[in-house]
Amino acid sequence: MNYGEVLNNAKTIIGKKCRVCKECNGIACKGEVPGVGGKGTGLAFIRNREKINQVKLHLDTIVPEDKIDTSIELFGRTLKYPILAAPIGGLEMNYGTAQLDDFTYSQAIVGGCKDAGVIGLTADGVKDAFFQDPLKAVGENEGWGIPTIKPWKNDEILKKISQAEEKQVPAIAIDIDAAGLVILAMLGKPVTRKSVDELKEITSATKLPVILKGVMTVEGAKKALEAGAYGIVVSNHGGRVLDHTLATIEVLPQIAEAVKGKMKIFIDGGFRDGVDIFKALALGADAVLIGRPYAVAAYGGGREGVELYTQKVGQELKETMIMTGCNEIQDIGKHCVSYSF
Amino acid sequence: MNYGEVLNNAKTIIGKKCRVCKECNGIACKGEVPGVGGKGTGLAFIRNREKINQVKLHLDTIVPEDKIDTSIELFGRTLKYPILAAPIGGLEMNYGTAQLDDFTYSQAIVGGCKDAGVIGLTADGVKDAFFQDPLKAVGENEGWGIPTIKPWKNDEILKKISQAEEKQVPAIAIDIDAAGLVILAMLGKPVTRKSVDELKEITSATKLPVILKGVMTVEGAKKALEAGAYGIVVSNHGGRVLDHTLATIEVLPQIAEAVKGKMKIFIDGGFRDGVDIFKALALGADAVLIGRPYAVAAYGGGREGVELYTQKVGQELKETMIMTGCNEIQDIGKHCVSYSF
Amino acid sequence: MNYGEVLNNAKTIIGKKCRVCKECNGIACKGEVPGVGGKGTGLAFIRNREKINQVKLHLDTIVPEDKIDTSIELFGRTLKYPILAAPIGGLEMNYGTAQLDDFTYSQAIVGGCKDAGVIGLTADGVKDAFFQDPLKAVGENEGWGIPTIKPWKNDEILKKISQAEEKQVPAIAIDIDAAGLVILAMLGKPVTRKSVDELKEITSATKLPVILKGVMTVEGAKKALEAGAYGIVVSNHGGRVLDHTLATIEVLPQIAEAVKGKMKIFIDGGFRDGVDIFKALALGADAVLIGRPYAVAAYGGGREGVELYTQKVGQELKETMIMTGCNEIQDIGKHCVSYSF
Amino acid sequence: MNYGEVLNNAKTIIGKKCRVCKECNGIACKGEVPGVGGKGTGLAFIRNREKINQVKLHLDTIVPEDKIDTSIELFGRTLKYPILAAPIGGLEMNYGTAQLDDFTYSQAIVGGCKDAGVIGLTADGVKDAFFQDPLKAVGENEGWGIPTIKPWKNDEILKKISQAEEKQVPAIAIDIDAAGLVILAMLGKPVTRKSVDELKEITSATKLPVILKGVMTVEGAKKALEAGAYGIVVSNHGGRVLDHTLATIEVLPQIAEAVKGKMKIFIDGGFRDGVDIFKALALGADAVLIGRPYAVAAYGGGREGVELYTQKVGQELKETMIMTGCNEIQDIGKHCVSYSF
Repeated sequence: MNYGEVLNNAKTIIGKKCRVCKECNGIACKGEVPGVGGKGTGLAFIRNREKINQVKLHLDTIVPEDKIDTSIELFGRTLKYPILAAPIGGLEMNYGTAQLDDFTYSQAIVGGCKDAGVIGLTADGVKDAFFQDPLKAVGENEGWGIPTIKPWKNDEILKKISQAEEKQVPAIAIDIDAAGLVILAMLGKPVTRKSVDELKEITSATKLPVILKGVMTVEGAKKALEAGAYGIVVSNHGGRVLDHTLATIEVLPQIAEAVKGKMKIFIDGGFRDGVDIFKALALGADAVLIGRPYAVAAYGGGREGVELYTQKVGQELKETMIMTGCNEIQDIGKHCVSYSF
Repeated sequence: MNYGEVLNNAKTIIGKKCRVCKECNGIACKGEVPGVGGKGTGLAFIRNREKINQVKLHLDTIVPEDKIDTSIELFGRTLKYPILAAPIGGLEMNYGTAQLDDFTYSQAIVGGCKDAGVIGLTADGVKDAFFQDPLKAVGENEGWGIPTIKPWKNDEILKKISQAEEKQVPAIAIDIDAAGLVILAMLGKPVTRKSVDELKEITSATKLPVILKGVMTVEGAKKALEAGAYGIVVSNHGGRVLDHTLATIEVLPQIAEAVKGKMKIFIDGGFRDGVDIFKALALGADAVLIGRPYAVAAYGGGREGVELYTQKVGQELKETMIMTGCNEIQDIGKHCVSYSF
Repeated sequence: MNYGEVLNNAKTIIGKKCRVCKECNGIACKGEVPGVGGKGTGLAFIRNREKINQVKLHLDTIVPEDKIDTSIELFGRTLKYPILAAPIGGLEMNYGTAQLDDFTYSQAIVGGCKDAGVIGLTADGVKDAFFQDPLKAVGENEGWGIPTIKPWKNDEILKKISQAEEKQVPAIAIDIDAAGLVILAMLGKPVTRKSVDELKEITSATKLPVILKGVMTVEGAKKALEAGAYGIVVSNHGGRVLDHTLATIEVLPQIAEAVKGKMKIFIDGGFRDGVDIFKALALGADAVLIGRPYAVAAYGGGREGVELYTQKVGQELKETMIMTGCNEIQDIGKHCVSYSF
Repeated sequence: MNYGEVLNNAKTIIGKKCRVCKECNGIACKGEVPGVGGKGTGLAFIRNREKINQVKLHLDTIVPEDKIDTSIELFGRTLKYPILAAPIGGLEMNYGTAQLDDFTYSQAIVGGCKDAGVIGLTADGVKDAFFQDPLKAVGENEGWGIPTIKPWKNDEILKKISQAEEKQVPAIAIDIDAAGLVILAMLGKPVTRKSVDELKEITSATKLPVILKGVMTVEGAKKALEAGAYGIVVSNHGGRVLDHTLATIEVLPQIAEAVKGKMKIFIDGGFRDGVDIFKALALGADAVLIGRPYAVAAYGGGREGVELYTQKVGQELKETMIMTGCNEIQDIGKHCVSYSF
């Protein structure tokens, strides 16, 4: 199998809901929730891509030749690339096919990421199985996955963290930006916004690093730091929880200026290839979560598709480093790019 | 009935004049006057939408959870949401159907708004009935509506105010930006621009709060204040009286800086959903008038359609407040948004 | 006849070369020279329109009502509106029809403008008749027209000025930006750039006011002033002599700042309706030349078409003055508009 | 033959790979590598054109008339225009036809440029013949061509320089931005980035002027100067070695500010006609390389096509100089243009 075949397969399987566009930019699917689009006008998703495209690279090849090393350290482990798969749940509803359920999808993502030397996040949902099934897939892969928990009541969260600890996962994530999913309350299991104190209760109850996903302001990043988070994901939930937000890459530089080095900064929202990863690192991210393209890879090629896609992005990152005079991940910085948001 | 059905019904009734576009942005109908478009190039209408889209929200869910209260106080009464229906007249001419006349339209708007806990404005025109009929609909709803009067000669205006007072309405509006409708002079009943003194004569002749609709400059807002207005509507008449004006949201911040707190600031021009309402409030408006979408709701669902649309927008506003860390209307401010006009 | 009929007629006559677009903006005809488009990429023409569209008006109707006066004084005469018809030559070649030749076209333009209370400019060309024929049409209208002369050798220019003086015209124009028409040299009659001294020789040899057409820089405007010009036309020749110039409205404010009041400032390039005229006046022009739309009017309605078009634009200017609180032409200024070039 | 026929011929020969678009701007062919497009999103190529279009000219014809001289001195020789043909290799693969191979293509380019008074660069590749064949074509034209060498190991480069010296070429070029072509390593002949010292070894080993092609930063330009280069080509390899770079014209002004006068500054990337050449000179380039349009000319008209295209561009440059008040190349400067990148 090669990546071209993965894309072609995916198109036949999920083409009605996700068109597997040449550039996955939120335009064809705008407003499609359920589905894979951004909420409302879809502009939050679309802007994520637009702003990434506005970051430009500085080509410079007058440097001593050296080996390129794309690896990073996270949670005391080594990832081959600064890439993670973002959590995606509700597969059947959003992709309009029973081809993969939350369990088989998680197997592909967690396994394929492991094979490629990176790590995948799994999702959560209103039914217990929506968390347990993905966690089972993590267990099958020696705990090489990061479970995501929705912002339920704290005891529910703590119970799920215990279950994750049993699988010896390296970290857990809470997608705090799911607080606006009023549908969950309608289904009898409300999510809520969380105060710093409530988040402190969680981070101090576990030895696992806790990642707070869905921070879009400097103020929010500082509160996450105060709450004891291991890291944040600068994220607008792919544009699916609030219309008309800023783009994630757009708020990254100021957030990095405020908290870089004090906690890990992850980001997601529109990152597609190795050049995009490079841009995020240049503007202050430690690593990047990729969402929709991993789903395409999983539908089109299963575990192997996920591995192939990761390798493709990793190789692109490597080539980008060659052309910008960078040899290691820490060489990548603001001097490598121009941008005007 | 649900809102999707309202839209579908509307399309069959007014689809030739108003296409009931997915995004009501003035592009499909540009230049169509009569009709529902903006005048000339249509760019004044189109820019209203474009500039609203340029305001971006700051997502932050790390806050203590609390109840959301969307209500505001106006004219000593409580509205469930900071939303009003804008006055629309000449229904048959502009929408190309006899389905609703100025009376039945006003019944749907005033009644539906009342049912949803907000308030509707009614319109005026060259014939006496164009003011009396809508006023009758207000009367049927215990005066729960705001009549709008065109900038006729002052005695004509004062006579109409007296008629409105009899219905115990909470306020009256004068759409001073109708001064350029030279067609009215051709029909024998000219409208004119008004000096501060002429406006003072009106505001001092009634105990009703007087709202001046059609202010687009700081200078104009200060003159309205000097004239004793209860409030202004920042409005370019939906782009229908002058081509190539600035957008209303674009002039709002400077107007708010000049007169906020000294008089009420309303705004209209391209506001469509709850996120749009939030943006207007963040930039200094006390409440927002919505025009064309209310007409769509009235054609597609009558009084119930108007109520359904209001509830939809109100719910969207509520969800937006959840995601931006706001619990009450006064929590919404400039710190919640980014914009560059 | 009404203006809608004029447009429809025109479409049948010149539709292959000039599509009589709803917005005459240089896009459909780009690069068509001969034809009516801009040279090369056509972007000079297109930018003229784009930049006019970027000027926005300040609506304000809280002013004392008064009569609107659109008239101006030029060359000791009164024009009903600050509008002139720009010179257009080579009709048959550019519009692809023998319907009008340079003589009959000039009759329509000069006569129609006179009827409407404004004044038309006529054109020049490589053959003697291209100047003589239009001049004859001016003569038929009591000299109520302004002949334009190409930048030939000075004695040729002076000879043509003498001929114009005999018709008692109010002024003559020289389109100095025709210097780049290398085709004229190929046809045996070269045009050239002119030094300040050469231009001085011309302005001092006649009592007629001399208008230099084709100035796009502050430096150029100052040189025109030094050369004794009565006025300049800020013009890029409709984008037909040099690709990729700035827009005329874009350079107007700085030119006005340098020479306003010391000489007359005319402008052309993309002005279409009364709002456009208003914008030019607000940014410093004394009057505006309109080109292509006058040709459309002449083809579609002859002398009457030219009159009808002028009245339409004049009425639009009047309505724009009503809505911006202006009563006389000198009330129109920078405070009436916003722009960011 | 005329240039229109050249274009029509080309369309029939290479139309499947290169559509011979009216404006060659990288949109139709984006992502097509092999092919003629930009890499990945194609935005590096596209931006090259966009930014050139954002440079605008200052028209001024009030100047003393004089003769126009477009010639420049380079390598102690005189070129009729400040134009060079950029090196293009892999013809059969990228243009999808056997019509021209690297040898016959080089014959057309080198010969046609010579006939028109300018000079062409030839290409290099993984096989020896890819360098030898073009060099043979240079030899057939008395050495009137500039061979380009890929950044192989230094001894390989030095060997090829010796071969070039035998043909008495005026200069050699090294396209250092080819360092990212990992395909070459896969084919057994890796290219690498070069340190300043490695480049010094090359420039000091030959008396030929050495041009380093592929510099996009001030830092890179200073390193090239330190390495003893005769000149640099500001180039992003037509957008084919790294996605999302800045445009070449965009970085030119700052590079010119740093090294202008200390070494020659060439540029390529999207330059198509004489106005484009003028813009590059105004922003600091000494001469401009043109790539894709020369390939179109060679396919469509061979040696004669190359000559015709050069004359067309040269004539356009001359006309642009007339309209901007420039008589010699050194008259062209920043005062002739406006730009905002």
